[in-house]
Amino acid sequence: MKIYDTHTAPTPRRVRIFLAEKGIEMDYVQVDLQKGENMTPEMRQKNPIGKVPVLELDDGTCIGESVAICRYFEALQPAPALMGTTPLEQAQIEMWQRQVEFALFMQVGMCFQHSTGYFKDRMTPVPEYGKVAGISASKYLNVLEKRLQSNEFIAGDNFSIADITAMCAIDFARVVQIKVNDEQVNLQRWYKAVSARPSASA
Amino acid sequence: MKIYDTHTAPTPRRVRIFLAEKGIEMDYVQVDLQKGENMTPEMRQKNPIGKVPVLELDDGTCIGESVAICRYFEALQPAPALMGTTPLEQAQIEMWQRQVEFALFMQVGMCFQHSTGYFKDRMTPVPEYGKVAGISASKYLNVLEKRLQSNEFIAGDNFSIADITAMCAIDFARVVQIKVNDEQVNLQRWYKAVSARPSASA
Repeated sequence: MKIYDTHTAPTPRRVRIFLAEKGIEMDYVQVDLQKGENMTPEMRQKNPIGKVPVLELDDGTCIGESVAICRYFEALQPAPALMGTTPLEQAQIEMWQRQVEFALFMQVGMCFQHSTGYFKDRMTPVPEYGKVAGISASKYLNVLEKRLQSNEFIAGDNFSIADITAMCAIDFARVVQIKVNDEQVNLQRWYKAVSARPSASA
Repeated sequence: MKIYDTHTAPTPRRVRIFLAEKGIEMDYVQVDLQKGENMTPEMRQKNPIGKVPVLELDDGTCIGESVAICRYFEALQPAPALMGTTPLEQAQIEMWQRQVEFALFMQVGMCFQHSTGYFKDRMTPVPEYGKVAGISASKYLNVLEKRLQSNEFIAGDNFSIADITAMCAIDFARVVQIKVNDEQVNLQRWYKAVSARPSASA
């Protein structure tokens, strides 16, 4: 099996980190997003929305969407658990993973795409919306700071997929000048810890 | 246990349909979104981003996010499976659920929020972005039409959470004049079938 990946993009990085945490080795095929290699008829056959990452199994079956690929490997190899074990843990991790994804990861992405026009050949950038999205992302960092006052990791006591999503969002946010500030001491402590894990460089 | 719900909103409807499919009875507490009842300090204690639905367990533990609440009940009561059984089914359903959510459900929501200014007391509407989001949603209906040419349901042979997300998006899309068109015969066939299920009126 192999994963169609773009090494510089934040979304496929989430899968690389997830697999590194599980100790799963993978073949990665690089796709150049700027050249639109992800939108060829061949790639749309693998993923109808033409995005990376895409996992291709040996029989040709393809799975798109970072979190869906993570779900596949979590089900195949449950340990170490990154999506929870009990029903309650699974739900709490999914809640935080989603909120971090919608209120931070996607807002950073929208800020980047709409402010810079990087993908203007394939979408309509609305710079004013890019600004609004950037402000939303910055505000959500305060929610995480509060959460991390009383929790070691975002979803509770254990490192999870929610931490991966948040770290990838925060690292990518530098390109649009959104940063954890000096007063966000709990977020700083958490960021230092998750960035020091070997998986962070995957 | 109980769920904080808003009967007219598309997101909590997803959970009501999911629970109806599983035959799980629930107490629902109505929250008036227009009056901002979801954003009180008490509700933010239950869900930091101040949104519905929120599941509150008998010990006071709260879980926000529609899909996280569904995940909880899927883990507690696996049958009938709405999120897949094998690792591959789970991944494929998660892929389609996410793509329908991001490319249709959220785009319809963004079109509504940014075009109408319905929540302008709590967000900055960008009407131009509302238009762009509406166009994206309409385009994604073509992806679903193609998918449903060779699949009974969105994620394959079985009704799943991806169908629930799509039906709730399409029903809500009427408020922004986005509709399945007459040429989308497979989407029409699918819509008629899922709407006829007793859960649709939950």
